[in-house]
Amino acid sequence: MKPRHATAVLLGCLCLPALAQFQTPEAAIKYRQGAFSVMGAHFSRLAMMTQGIQPFDAKSATENAELVGNLARLPFTAFGPGTDKGAPNRSRDEVWKEAAKFKAAAEKMVADVGKLEAAAKGGDFETLKAAVGVVGKSCKSCHDDFRGARRE
Amino acid sequence: MKPRHATAVLLGCLCLPALAQFQTPEAAIKYRQGAFSVMGAHFSRLAMMTQGIQPFDAKSATENAELVGNLARLPFTAFGPGTDKGAPNRSRDEVWKEAAKFKAAAEKMVADVGKLEAAAKGGDFETLKAAVGVVGKSCKSCHDDFRGARRE
Repeated sequence: MKPRHATAVLLGCLCLPALAQFQTPEAAIKYRQGAFSVMGAHFSRLAMMTQGIQPFDAKSATENAELVGNLARLPFTAFGPGTDKGAPNRSRDEVWKEAAKFKAAAEKMVADVGKLEAAAKGGDFETLKAAVGVVGKSCKSCHDDFRGARRE
Repeated sequence: MKPRHATAVLLGCLCLPALAQFQTPEAAIKYRQGAFSVMGAHFSRLAMMTQGIQPFDAKSATENAELVGNLARLPFTAFGPGTDKGAPNRSRDEVWKEAAKFKAAAEKMVADVGKLEAAAKGGDFETLKAAVGVVGKSCKSCHDDFRGARRE
């Protein structure tokens, strides 16, 4: 039980200052939705390049990947206790009930985004395409487990 | 008339690729609202420090100022023609009717945010406090002129 307890303490440490950063649950919900929205837009631009829908441009790819990198950690500071309600949102109860699993999923995404940034800076199309695929799977996996129907 | 014409051409050049980046007006509106929301949250953390509501921490101030700097340009890529409707928003018609004035206000804010980042990195509290005040005035001025009642 010791590792599980340690994880719980660590999660507590991570969540409390995060919650303190927001005045209200509504502010936290809008912040995380905003961060996901902007991050998603820039990730989509990368995906459109690697899928051949838009022409590949190494400079633009790097700019978009850096923005995704700058934003990736932010939303997870805004899932503190009590932020399941306060504004319409799609977070499932599992975000808080399975907090360690959610945290692991968030950390995997952030790590995958780090590799995405490196791939974009490297300038090789196939490497970037593979990295976009890995991040896309991270997004989908977390959405499957933790994002549900809209609730008020 | 030549400078005015040149400005109109420049604005056209800036707006068209920006619009092309979004699939729908709704996507553009959500993107700019998201960017403003996240930027506003990090700017508020700086303002809370310089107003003495939160303790001053130079490292945290720099992180927040860098995030504001990363985000400052983004919303203005999402005010392309036809994005006045498509999702609830508070943009006034003046955003498009007085496009040159809006662009100048946006550029002033971005320049002020550049000074804010430099001030935060410098680590001097009074310099940062002054820079936060200047950016706050930029925000307010633009909101006064270009942000109105919510419309569907």
